[in-house]
Amino acid sequence: MKIAIIGGTGDQGLGLALRFVKAGEDVIVGSRDIKKAETAVDLMKDILGSEDLPNLTAMTNQDAASNGDIIILTVPLQAQMVTLKSIKDNLKGEIFVDATSPLEGCLGGKPTRYVDLWEGSAAERSAEFLGDNAVVVSAFCNISASSLTTVDEDVECDCLVSGDDHEANLIVMELAEKISGVKSIECGALENARIVEKLTPLLINLNIRNKVKNAGIRISNI
Amino acid sequence: MKIAIIGGTGDQGLGLALRFVKAGEDVIVGSRDIKKAETAVDLMKDILGSEDLPNLTAMTNQDAASNGDIIILTVPLQAQMVTLKSIKDNLKGEIFVDATSPLEGCLGGKPTRYVDLWEGSAAERSAEFLGDNAVVVSAFCNISASSLTTVDEDVECDCLVSGDDHEANLIVMELAEKISGVKSIECGALENARIVEKLTPLLINLNIRNKVKNAGIRISNI
Repeated sequence: MKIAIIGGTGDQGLGLALRFVKAGEDVIVGSRDIKKAETAVDLMKDILGSEDLPNLTAMTNQDAASNGDIIILTVPLQAQMVTLKSIKDNLKGEIFVDATSPLEGCLGGKPTRYVDLWEGSAAERSAEFLGDNAVVVSAFCNISASSLTTVDEDVECDCLVSGDDHEANLIVMELAEKISGVKSIECGALENARIVEKLTPLLINLNIRNKVKNAGIRISNI
Repeated sequence: MKIAIIGGTGDQGLGLALRFVKAGEDVIVGSRDIKKAETAVDLMKDILGSEDLPNLTAMTNQDAASNGDIIILTVPLQAQMVTLKSIKDNLKGEIFVDATSPLEGCLGGKPTRYVDLWEGSAAERSAEFLGDNAVVVSAFCNISASSLTTVDEDVECDCLVSGDDHEANLIVMELAEKISGVKSIECGALENARIVEKLTPLLINLNIRNKVKNAGIRISNI
């Protein structure tokens, strides 16, 4: 299964790519600019201490979307729509994981506040725009980039997964648990991303208040 | 310090009262109807296996508000405003803890969905209405009634505390940690209740999906 990370050169995308490569998955790092994708791949090889990583490839976002079996979107909110428009025609009904957080900081405000989107959540925005071209699942938005890029430590955060297609949710949940320390929690239909995405600004708030970078959430008693 | 629980005969209020009485605090159980408050006190004595609990008293909501040093509101959303109106004149600037969850279920919808309130959150609604009569703090809304009433077991849930008065937050945080198993997390200004309150329908959703009654949230790495 090839995992294509759209916007894979940002911290969140880079972190997810590192974790999946480390778990032996085939990963395509996508970027608007192929050179940026190649630079990110070089950086990841440095971090992982290996020049020989045949399961890690750099591509443009369009080629990544065309070649991935599962697509993960990790761009900031202000880049979400323009990125979706640039890759929609490359998608053919694959699982499309939206990890966008609707942070006010993306609109010049505070990263500790959310903004309300017309569709209810960033993931529902992707689903509405992509239509039949993708099966959208919301996941990964609460897991801090800092946790992900600290590849030798467990990620102390559950992955809350929401989506209208249960089988797709299960595939994403299994993928998430390839990240050491992560437990996947299915939250039901995609509309639940309205709550899950809003947790991200709270965790950023707790990071700032406590001078840490990797506050996470765990669900207890289930 | 006398803790007055307004709407103390519902599951959440009863559970908090049980835990605070067990911790040796003075607790006033308030209800619109003094007989209901007395019945709740009798039930609590049964649950705690003791007839002799001088630190547990039944009162009307108005008398509870007048006599409490710290007031906790535990009513469903549809009863919030009418209850606030009934006790506003009994308050003289005390710490007022709002534990209301803005569940769609309170308006005939699903308990797994939130409703947006004009003020941003139920706690901000209390603050706007009570004005100088109270120092409002948001807390306890995520802790399940089932966890609280199972008094022999630790509550596996953090208490996320938001409020504009840091000293008041600290008092509420200390109080919350009298509940065995609870860790208090300060989330900053009262506006953060907008996120924290929305977690409750997600936890109810996870309870339903997993056939449990006490799903909770823990913040990791801080």
